[in-house]
Amino acid sequence: MARADDLSGYLIAPDLGRNGLTRAVQGTDQDGVAQDLNVVEERPLTIYLNRREIVTAMTIGDYPEYLALGFLRNQGMLRDADDVTRVDYDEEVETVVVRTATETDYEDKLARKTRTSGCAVGTVFGDMMAGLEGLVLPDTQVRTSDLYALAHHINRTPSLYLEAGAIHGTVLCQGAQPLVYMEDVGRHNAVDKIAGWMLSERVSAGDKLLYTTGRLTSEMVIKTALMGIPVLASRSGFTAWGVEIARQIGLTLIGRMRGKRFVCLAGEERLVRDADLSLVADEDRAHRRKSAR
Amino acid sequence: MARADDLSGYLIAPDLGRNGLTRAVQGTDQDGVAQDLNVVEERPLTIYLNRREIVTAMTIGDYPEYLALGFLRNQGMLRDADDVTRVDYDEEVETVVVRTATETDYEDKLARKTRTSGCAVGTVFGDMMAGLEGLVLPDTQVRTSDLYALAHHINRTPSLYLEAGAIHGTVLCQGAQPLVYMEDVGRHNAVDKIAGWMLSERVSAGDKLLYTTGRLTSEMVIKTALMGIPVLASRSGFTAWGVEIARQIGLTLIGRMRGKRFVCLAGEERLVRDADLSLVADEDRAHRRKSAR
Repeated sequence: MARADDLSGYLIAPDLGRNGLTRAVQGTDQDGVAQDLNVVEERPLTIYLNRREIVTAMTIGDYPEYLALGFLRNQGMLRDADDVTRVDYDEEVETVVVRTATETDYEDKLARKTRTSGCAVGTVFGDMMAGLEGLVLPDTQVRTSDLYALAHHINRTPSLYLEAGAIHGTVLCQGAQPLVYMEDVGRHNAVDKIAGWMLSERVSAGDKLLYTTGRLTSEMVIKTALMGIPVLASRSGFTAWGVEIARQIGLTLIGRMRGKRFVCLAGEERLVRDADLSLVADEDRAHRRKSAR
Repeated sequence: MARADDLSGYLIAPDLGRNGLTRAVQGTDQDGVAQDLNVVEERPLTIYLNRREIVTAMTIGDYPEYLALGFLRNQGMLRDADDVTRVDYDEEVETVVVRTATETDYEDKLARKTRTSGCAVGTVFGDMMAGLEGLVLPDTQVRTSDLYALAHHINRTPSLYLEAGAIHGTVLCQGAQPLVYMEDVGRHNAVDKIAGWMLSERVSAGDKLLYTTGRLTSEMVIKTALMGIPVLASRSGFTAWGVEIARQIGLTLIGRMRGKRFVCLAGEERLVRDADLSLVADEDRAHRRKSAR
């Protein structure tokens, strides 16, 4: 069984010793007393797909290759069939270039689009939704005993969040085991890094669960489904459209997970309520994630 | 003095009776008991500048004209000098078209940009930063007694957040008085709606303070400065780059405001510590904003 505060079973966990993810910043408190604070970094990363500049994302800076790959994949700009030949990160100029064997559909679509409206942003959401047609997510069961074990383990994992705050976390899990824990200043970047890792490592998705600290919006639901993951859980709330899309595509959506409480909003049929709730602790203050980030 | 839970002095406050901002959604809790929940809406809004499609934003749906105006302004696509002739919202097709007397600089820049890299996204951040050159924010004083009064008033204002959660709020304030309280599923949308309102109503910015529930990232700091507001306060945390930019442009940045606690990270010289801290209540649980949204 996992010890509290350990990293048992993680393939990737937050790397608090890594240089450059946080910075010492001085401030003054309400009494005018100087405060030394450890604050998360935030830096631009420009993502290219072959010769085309796609986006500049604000990121904490770790795993730029996974972020770029996952972003392109989750935006529908990179399909399963696209053969990624190289991913080059240049730290100095803060760019990642993802190269494919042949020019992708997306580039062609973008070229056509730019002749009419001049900017690709508007197409992105439609492209994401289009990727969901015909998608069938597997019937993987979700045991509530696993859900509680995951939340307990994740909330006790040393993280930049616990150290510095102002950051979101997303964790790829299987059964009761958290596997890959990514953090980023952008809520979606953490998810995209996981998508990039899954793509690189050719990891199966149908037996996984995605846990996030962020809200369950339409975009988060769509990304999870595009990744092929049938279950999305969060300690935060949800939007009506997020719920509606989860129901349409048959994704299990679980929100407001705190201590023994949660709400299942879609895909109830995957849920196996096997936990003995009298044994599940209410959330204790020390490990409660801070409010409003 | 303002009563608790009242709307005194607001020009715009959250309108909980407005149709279409929330929806009743059913879920099941940890015991399998059906739950009726009031959940915030989220819908796409496509923003056009003249004949050019700029972006599709995910929004709760109120004040679409302010959102469009404020977005374009805060992205540097609409300058002070641009003469906005019409703003048309079409609810059915979920679009806002902002029209200017003459084609804006931005459109010209975008047209040139698309010939080289095909997408405008990458230029946006650079454009925002460019708008900060030569900016001088006024020396407006910030009394800590006003800060505490604002936080107290805002946290007790009936809001979609308190009713349904999963939403961010931003409040334009003057002295101890909150004036315009906007909410949205997107953290930046709430700020953009305030910018749009200020632009429409030609409101002075130099004597204002912006309060937000969200994190103080570089983009939030830049937007506040572009709006001409010298003080940005939040109950949430901050990023290192957010702090750095605030220092460079001389903006007063206050984070982690909870009960009597806060940290001032930049622009300390505007701060007047006049509050008697023994009279300021610690944050009580009932009005504490929920964690992790």
